[in-house]
Amino acid sequence: MTKIISISEAELLEMEQRKRAQLINSIGGYKSGILIGSVDREGQENLAIFNSIFHLGANPPLFGLIFRPDSAPRHTLSNIEETGFFTVNQIHSKIIEQAHHTAARYDKSVSEFKAAGLTPEYKSSFFAPFVLESLVKFSAQLAEVHRLSINNTIMVIGKILEIHLPENTLLEDGMIDLVAADTVAVSGLDRYMKAKEIVRLPYAKPNPQYH
Amino acid sequence: MTKIISISEAELLEMEQRKRAQLINSIGGYKSGILIGSVDREGQENLAIFNSIFHLGANPPLFGLIFRPDSAPRHTLSNIEETGFFTVNQIHSKIIEQAHHTAARYDKSVSEFKAAGLTPEYKSSFFAPFVLESLVKFSAQLAEVHRLSINNTIMVIGKILEIHLPENTLLEDGMIDLVAADTVAVSGLDRYMKAKEIVRLPYAKPNPQYH
Repeated sequence: MTKIISISEAELLEMEQRKRAQLINSIGGYKSGILIGSVDREGQENLAIFNSIFHLGANPPLFGLIFRPDSAPRHTLSNIEETGFFTVNQIHSKIIEQAHHTAARYDKSVSEFKAAGLTPEYKSSFFAPFVLESLVKFSAQLAEVHRLSINNTIMVIGKILEIHLPENTLLEDGMIDLVAADTVAVSGLDRYMKAKEIVRLPYAKPNPQYH
Repeated sequence: MTKIISISEAELLEMEQRKRAQLINSIGGYKSGILIGSVDREGQENLAIFNSIFHLGANPPLFGLIFRPDSAPRHTLSNIEETGFFTVNQIHSKIIEQAHHTAARYDKSVSEFKAAGLTPEYKSSFFAPFVLESLVKFSAQLAEVHRLSINNTIMVIGKILEIHLPENTLLEDGMIDLVAADTVAVSGLDRYMKAKEIVRLPYAKPNPQYH
């Protein structure tokens, strides 16, 4: 048995900043890494990695995304607010380094598609660019922007418009097989993982003994 | 090469409800599955699985959780709103079935700890119960509740108080090693996965060629 350690609230607040960021970013468990494609009204493309996407509802199909309150310009957020449209692209094991590189700070005049070695793809006359190399992706429309005063982060709520994916990744019951799609999971800020199924469980029903 | 298929917005809206739920729940990629422990003022314990936790910030240490707008009573949410405190417990491969079972609908008078076969654990005089069997866990305080009018979901913002974890899962730089902790990832509503590291990448810096 390994020893259990505790990190108190005071120790957490006193912790060196990068160390605390790693700890707090990994305490919630695995995250999803996705690439957001956007373009401004002048056609300047932008691509950025996010690991804060979360499910908000299936009808209407909605998701949330958190943007940091950084003082640095947020090209993705300004493009989304300016145009109302963007794309969400899953990351698979063969584009991890390119996807990670989009986190580097470039001027607005630089396309992270080009800097990272990924290809913009315009599909179904949609306004914003997809990532050609991504396998599972969807177009999205800005629904709401919430500025969270508690820590100045910005929550964007997006509506899923059209989904594109390889036929063999769509299971009969509607689930996307993330293993077949080679989708990666993210831990913390910089660790990329592949997953393997342990079990799929049926809908949970109460045990009559306790009902 | 497998065929790429597209699911239009109209097709998505016409899709059978459970199928769309599976699709939209898996389109964002891997999620984290966690158990929320809570208790009401009378001491009635509650335990529930969530896969909607997201990172909101490291300083102060904040996270978000989404509650569905279901008409059914939400014991976890009412306990959190009533008492202001709860616990977040990571799920590892040996407690998947128990964790999944907490999603079953029980009356408020039933403790899902008991119904699922997990053990409430009171640590550091904290008000709400942890899951004894969970390895990585933390106590949390309610910070804010946002009712999102777009689909009537409820977003709870929690503050991380004290973290408990096995010593061998805490890496030198602060990251929790989710593989060492045997933490599971979730896909869709019911698929539990284990992960393996592909790569850990350094902080992304711009390529001077494009700067």
